[in-house]
Amino acid sequence: MYTVAQIAKFLHGQFKGDGAEQISQLAPLASGQLGAITFCAQPKFLNQLAESRASVVLVTEANCHLVKNTAIIVEDPYLAFAKISQWFDWRLPVVAGVCQSANIAESASIAESSQICSGVVIGEQVVIEKGCYIGANTVIGDLCVIAANCRLEANVSLYQDVHLGENCIVHAGAVLGADGFGFVKRAEGWQKIYQLGGVRIGSDVEIGASTTIDRGALEHTVIGDGVKLDNQVQIAHNVHLGDFTAIAGGTAIAGSTHIGENCTIGGLSGVTGHLKIAAGTHITAMSLVSRSVKQAGVYSSGTAMEEHHSWKRNVVRFRSLDQMVKRIKRLEDEVQKLSSQEQ
Amino acid sequence: MYTVAQIAKFLHGQFKGDGAEQISQLAPLASGQLGAITFCAQPKFLNQLAESRASVVLVTEANCHLVKNTAIIVEDPYLAFAKISQWFDWRLPVVAGVCQSANIAESASIAESSQICSGVVIGEQVVIEKGCYIGANTVIGDLCVIAANCRLEANVSLYQDVHLGENCIVHAGAVLGADGFGFVKRAEGWQKIYQLGGVRIGSDVEIGASTTIDRGALEHTVIGDGVKLDNQVQIAHNVHLGDFTAIAGGTAIAGSTHIGENCTIGGLSGVTGHLKIAAGTHITAMSLVSRSVKQAGVYSSGTAMEEHHSWKRNVVRFRSLDQMVKRIKRLEDEVQKLSSQEQ
Amino acid sequence: MYTVAQIAKFLHGQFKGDGAEQISQLAPLASGQLGAITFCAQPKFLNQLAESRASVVLVTEANCHLVKNTAIIVEDPYLAFAKISQWFDWRLPVVAGVCQSANIAESASIAESSQICSGVVIGEQVVIEKGCYIGANTVIGDLCVIAANCRLEANVSLYQDVHLGENCIVHAGAVLGADGFGFVKRAEGWQKIYQLGGVRIGSDVEIGASTTIDRGALEHTVIGDGVKLDNQVQIAHNVHLGDFTAIAGGTAIAGSTHIGENCTIGGLSGVTGHLKIAAGTHITAMSLVSRSVKQAGVYSSGTAMEEHHSWKRNVVRFRSLDQMVKRIKRLEDEVQKLSSQEQ
Repeated sequence: MYTVAQIAKFLHGQFKGDGAEQISQLAPLASGQLGAITFCAQPKFLNQLAESRASVVLVTEANCHLVKNTAIIVEDPYLAFAKISQWFDWRLPVVAGVCQSANIAESASIAESSQICSGVVIGEQVVIEKGCYIGANTVIGDLCVIAANCRLEANVSLYQDVHLGENCIVHAGAVLGADGFGFVKRAEGWQKIYQLGGVRIGSDVEIGASTTIDRGALEHTVIGDGVKLDNQVQIAHNVHLGDFTAIAGGTAIAGSTHIGENCTIGGLSGVTGHLKIAAGTHITAMSLVSRSVKQAGVYSSGTAMEEHHSWKRNVVRFRSLDQMVKRIKRLEDEVQKLSSQEQ
Repeated sequence: MYTVAQIAKFLHGQFKGDGAEQISQLAPLASGQLGAITFCAQPKFLNQLAESRASVVLVTEANCHLVKNTAIIVEDPYLAFAKISQWFDWRLPVVAGVCQSANIAESASIAESSQICSGVVIGEQVVIEKGCYIGANTVIGDLCVIAANCRLEANVSLYQDVHLGENCIVHAGAVLGADGFGFVKRAEGWQKIYQLGGVRIGSDVEIGASTTIDRGALEHTVIGDGVKLDNQVQIAHNVHLGDFTAIAGGTAIAGSTHIGENCTIGGLSGVTGHLKIAAGTHITAMSLVSRSVKQAGVYSSGTAMEEHHSWKRNVVRFRSLDQMVKRIKRLEDEVQKLSSQEQ
Repeated sequence: MYTVAQIAKFLHGQFKGDGAEQISQLAPLASGQLGAITFCAQPKFLNQLAESRASVVLVTEANCHLVKNTAIIVEDPYLAFAKISQWFDWRLPVVAGVCQSANIAESASIAESSQICSGVVIGEQVVIEKGCYIGANTVIGDLCVIAANCRLEANVSLYQDVHLGENCIVHAGAVLGADGFGFVKRAEGWQKIYQLGGVRIGSDVEIGASTTIDRGALEHTVIGDGVKLDNQVQIAHNVHLGDFTAIAGGTAIAGSTHIGENCTIGGLSGVTGHLKIAAGTHITAMSLVSRSVKQAGVYSSGTAMEEHHSWKRNVVRFRSLDQMVKRIKRLEDEVQKLSSQEQ
């Protein structure tokens, strides 16, 4: 429970109404009730303001007059909502201590303020800095470094030599530092190239559930500061992700590709290996990026959904596209000839 | 070992042959041996009936005369086969009790008839109802509710506030209740929107290995009764899946999308966010659904496989499709003009 | 630390230079320093040879004169590099013994030379042969067989009745033997078909992080010798993968499909069920294979990335492809008519 005045102060906003009002939860604009705080950021939702029963609404000064109950005036209501959401989070504060069932190498160094849950296994010479939370049954390999205030959820696997910067969140089931997919094909089969690099992850990175980031072959795989990876993303060996790049669920980035800063990549997309993607590039969902992108912009591949029977007819035609262009060219030549004869 | 008579009784079928015959396994029609039960449901397999060496065949009355050995006559042989398959399952009956190495919060409530395997970690105020099986090293966060007769396999992760209805199966490595991918992008990077909703899963739901279902942002992510999710499916925050909808492996559903009842979605498909998909919609494999579907039907996107060199030529032409249409239009105009001059 | 002479001997190569020189690491050609060994296999990198500061370079005899420092002459420098990479691997030798916190069924048989890490759970009648490494918190179901010298990393899940051949590597989070996605749809919902087969994996197989291989419905799912699966690959029930086939990350193979030997499948590709793919077939990234491949070759589907706005225009035209072909045909007929009138 927080008061309106507390929230307004944290958000550097001004409230109109009762500053002592108690707020116990966040809610959507349409379904907010007594004790809830909500926000209105987009013009299309302004008409819902009059009907909202939430106790408090975060709004801009310009829209403040539309609020019936209490308002907190902020410059950027959506950002303010995001910031205050942490106050209502279900995660409990970190409880310093190591659970008895955890298995920690003697050479590991764990800050006293960090929390190590049940069944955690921590390898030799691991460093875990202050304020970290290591979820149940997570395994951390030798020589890993977890900087301050990181949160690893349950059943996470870190191989040897993975470094995480401060304030990272790693969701359950994620695997960091597995071998890159490196083999030499010869007549007798595939010869494994042992993957000797590590993984270097910046600060403020969030890594989704079951996401995998492979270790480098010789040098490191590198994830910049503020990168956000959704669930089930695959990052291959020696990939570099620039700061603040965000990648949606199910996307795979192949080996040695470098993606610049502030890129976004839609879900289920693929980026092939050894490419360079310019900073500020946006890739829409389910696109295949098979060449480097030199100029920032929005890029796509694929076709749009349609009814299956008509799609099947069009798909058949796709295979004769090249032939179609040739037929058009031939027609153009013939029509040109006919036209000239006509004149 | 079951007798033919026992099986026939369970399936509400009639047997022709020796009811005391012992059946020890299920088998395909073609490779069934002595002691095996098999089935014949499709006309194209009727010719295999004569050659099958299985002891018993499940058939319709109409095809019963084709069976050489014992027959059990049922209305729906495929359904009967599915139903009897449980009798031959390798899973042992649930053994009531909590393994000594499990780590269970004192405030958790575990039904005596449930089985909690080695290394399981169970949080505060968790409720596990009767007849449940919680596989080794699975982690269950605070406030979760697991209704009767659920089976969670090994290394499953449930975050706080995930509810499962009765008779659910959750396969190994699945992650339920991780944070949705919610951030606000501003000049200084991505501001996390804490994900405060939970996950509500109906009864008779099966969730595949390494499948991830995110918790809601403010309200819950909701999975209906009888939903079946294959492996490595990604369900984002605030998605609703209607009853009996089934989704094949590798598919990702983006945030806040509502999918109706009795839909099927093929593998590696993507559905973008904030859509509504009508009940009874079927999406073929590897399709991208980027607009709402109002009318039930079958939908697809993408192109069909072809030999790489011809594909490359066609792919290049795809990028001039718009231009091609304009060239055709111009040709039509010119030919129209020529034809009218001709007359 | 190894000497040049030791390395040359292992690789059946000849060295030119100081055989006593100490080598402590592998490095890329461009960034190699004192104490590093590197290689040069492609003509395009020959110009880097003169500038490389690595102590030793693996080269062919033909290129040996370009090496400034020590050279080791081998027939196949890339293969030699791959082979020697194991000497510099970070994995420690297997330490025989069972960690006290592991939970092992009495009926299991574990070779004395194998290493069982913390939190491992091993079921009834499991056989683990010599020289195996079973990583922390991995769970192995009843009746599994792990042949000699396998390495299972952390948090791996094996269901009942999964067999692994010798020298396999299974990366963290992988799930082997979960139920195939088998259900019968009837008016009352989906009836589960219990999945009674197992998983049979050959020798020298590598299975990536979070990859899932389902058990068979009645018979086994079969993975051949020397198969390499990247991360997050999904192999459905009763799939057969031929020897030395390699599949990149995020790809899904649907049920009962048989893929021949020596195939490669690019990332995020899908292969639908009940197909046969000829040995030696190569599928490029993000392709959908929806029919059998009888002749080895390279196959693809999908479209190429382009700028979003032009893509949108082309995508709209894709839906009228069938109509476009008809318009072209009509134009050809009309032009043919006009031409004949002209003559």
